[in-house]
Amino acid sequence: MLLKLSFSTAKTVERLVACNVGRVRWMSTGMEKGSNFFFRQLFDTVSSTYTYLLGDMKTCEAVLIDPVLEHAERDAALIKELGFNLLYAMNTHMHADHITGTGKLKSLLPGTKSVIGKASGAQADMFLIDGDVVCFGCYKLLATATPGHTNGCLTYISHEQGIAFTGDTLLIRGCGRTDFQEGSSETLYHSVHNKIFTLPENYTLYPAHDYKGQTATTVGEEKKYNPRLTKPLKKFIDIMDKFNLPYPKMIDKAVPANRVCGLY
Amino acid sequence: MLLKLSFSTAKTVERLVACNVGRVRWMSTGMEKGSNFFFRQLFDTVSSTYTYLLGDMKTCEAVLIDPVLEHAERDAALIKELGFNLLYAMNTHMHADHITGTGKLKSLLPGTKSVIGKASGAQADMFLIDGDVVCFGCYKLLATATPGHTNGCLTYISHEQGIAFTGDTLLIRGCGRTDFQEGSSETLYHSVHNKIFTLPENYTLYPAHDYKGQTATTVGEEKKYNPRLTKPLKKFIDIMDKFNLPYPKMIDKAVPANRVCGLY
Repeated sequence: MLLKLSFSTAKTVERLVACNVGRVRWMSTGMEKGSNFFFRQLFDTVSSTYTYLLGDMKTCEAVLIDPVLEHAERDAALIKELGFNLLYAMNTHMHADHITGTGKLKSLLPGTKSVIGKASGAQADMFLIDGDVVCFGCYKLLATATPGHTNGCLTYISHEQGIAFTGDTLLIRGCGRTDFQEGSSETLYHSVHNKIFTLPENYTLYPAHDYKGQTATTVGEEKKYNPRLTKPLKKFIDIMDKFNLPYPKMIDKAVPANRVCGLY
Repeated sequence: MLLKLSFSTAKTVERLVACNVGRVRWMSTGMEKGSNFFFRQLFDTVSSTYTYLLGDMKTCEAVLIDPVLEHAERDAALIKELGFNLLYAMNTHMHADHITGTGKLKSLLPGTKSVIGKASGAQADMFLIDGDVVCFGCYKLLATATPGHTNGCLTYISHEQGIAFTGDTLLIRGCGRTDFQEGSSETLYHSVHNKIFTLPENYTLYPAHDYKGQTATTVGEEKKYNPRLTKPLKKFIDIMDKFNLPYPKMIDKAVPANRVCGLY
């Protein structure tokens, strides 16, 4: 099967990658029987950030989503132990609450390319726009534009595995803030309803953060129980407007650093 | 298929439960396609404890492993939202670092039975010994005695899903302490090598704790990279002897409370 890997770099590159798409099964956390799909969730207790390592155990190609600077060594060590070749250190968006580990991972694991949404305005080796597909081995992630928390927010979807990485767009029973950077409650609401809630209800959603010890959710759960996004648009905007949250404590450090892959 | 559900209560009870054992596939975190097996990992950031909700989405029967008292409401709310009937609130052992939520969950979700290893010495509705099988819907967990951290430590294994819940016996790149309660480094070493490292290498292992943001491991990884348990027995005992860890800060509160299901 031929997949088009379309990275929207400054000079748009289009590559045709031959992928033997394997059995469509979602394997959880490791080297389980019957599939070559590898998945591992990692956590940063300081910023409550989740990082995700995905890999193809046959070809040993892997990607890392939303790494945290302070855990770059931990993540690089795990990737080496598992024998993976890290192709891409990816961000769902330009974070305001922690510094990305993508830049440091490039130095720890030479050959790794940093990846972020083009609309983020951040530097990286490769930029994605809506509809781009990222391949690692025979697996792929579809980059889907879900702006609202920031302009450049992407949700990475694997239809084969029935999973999506929602960044700060949709959190478990919550959502990202819309009161800084290019935040827009209306835009976020439409992103969630048009791009995430339209996925099959049994898809598992992995957010960039959780603050209550929750690790994952599903489309069906959030459509039913998300206390904000189950509301009509006007009510949602009103809820978001009335939060009056404190100024993000890390933003003045994190955003400038993340503009340059954390290599500040 | 008939499964023997053998709970070693004061008066040993044996039940024959009809289970239609479904497709042997490991589903990760929710209502995914093609399987009725439900899995959700939950976390307590204070004691770095992992709690696990497992369920059969067809029969709606579920079990919860190692709940934390302070999160009993969170866990009960999730169980209700998902429409599960919680059969068993189970502990892998009598914890010394947090108070179990099993007793409180019994009151929040009437009908739930508390379960623990008989050798723990703790009170519960049902006691397990090595070889007992716990059924929920058409799924089952095999209780396997893995003493060493405490006498009553059990590892719960699902051979169908290729997963095991190791409690404090085996942690990710580590293991539980052996310097309090009935701790024995030699016993723990044999438990790990004879009962866990003999499982297939692709089995995913879920510990009761992690302190570095790791969520899971595999038998293969620990056999290769566990810095303690890859050593010969004498070296392992020496490593454990030399830790000189501080007195567990929660032990004087947690152990007496856990002796009575957290209802102190």
